[in-house]
Amino acid sequence: MATATIERTAEAEIRSLIDDWAEAAGAFDLERIMAAYAPDVLAYDAIAELQFKGAEAYREHWQACAAMCPGPMVFEVHDLAIEAGDDIAFGHYLVRCGMVRDDGTEDTGYMRATFCCRKRAGRWQIVHEHFSAPFDPESGKALLRLAP
Amino acid sequence: MATATIERTAEAEIRSLIDDWAEAAGAFDLERIMAAYAPDVLAYDAIAELQFKGAEAYREHWQACAAMCPGPMVFEVHDLAIEAGDDIAFGHYLVRCGMVRDDGTEDTGYMRATFCCRKRAGRWQIVHEHFSAPFDPESGKALLRLAP
Repeated sequence: MATATIERTAEAEIRSLIDDWAEAAGAFDLERIMAAYAPDVLAYDAIAELQFKGAEAYREHWQACAAMCPGPMVFEVHDLAIEAGDDIAFGHYLVRCGMVRDDGTEDTGYMRATFCCRKRAGRWQIVHEHFSAPFDPESGKALLRLAP
Repeated sequence: MATATIERTAEAEIRSLIDDWAEAAGAFDLERIMAAYAPDVLAYDAIAELQFKGAEAYREHWQACAAMCPGPMVFEVHDLAIEAGDDIAFGHYLVRCGMVRDDGTEDTGYMRATFCCRKRAGRWQIVHEHFSAPFDPESGKALLRLAP
């Protein structure tokens, strides 16, 4: 295939990977969440630790996050952008995430996400992921109420 | 060139780009810092805003950061990892950063960095960057004293 065609195909494959993953994340469906990651994924998550090395460590962190948020979640991907080669790709998006309160209203904020993928044995996997909220250098507090 | 050779060459080029950039960042040398970025860079920085769109917006943010930190800086890259194709690459590292106090001691912490590059007209440029510190979900405070 010509390079432009490969890139378009790869981009569509990765878009599908992220769509599936985001749906799983919104439902805290741990098996479907973890299916997107390479065994040697290195993750920088928004909370708790500097880094998570490997899928097992990251799975435990996801389980801890699920325990923190027992109710229905909001996990809405915005401004997804992808750059893909034949076996390397990366992308980023903003995610409106948070909880649905008992009265049905939402308590959400925007975070930033970057993901990096490799194609191995014909399948794209996330090998690196970075989620975060920026913080206010004056107060040291995470800025959870910013909007694009 | 064979694929493995291209990847090794690209990795060496990107390592050099990041080394130069990190040296410039430690010195707050704005021209050298900005030389690494594509005009359309999208940056998620650790502080202040959700995102910075384009090199001009990011330059203004760097200037504001420099104004906040008038003294000598520490900006030390650890655990740099790079994955490179022929015109797409990404990488990540931990950075020990902060200030040197008047008495010569250092006030530093570790942050996380992800960078994504494209090769355009024979030159690698950073098209996306993500810096952050994780936060404590209980207190809402950025965790600036974690170490790898």
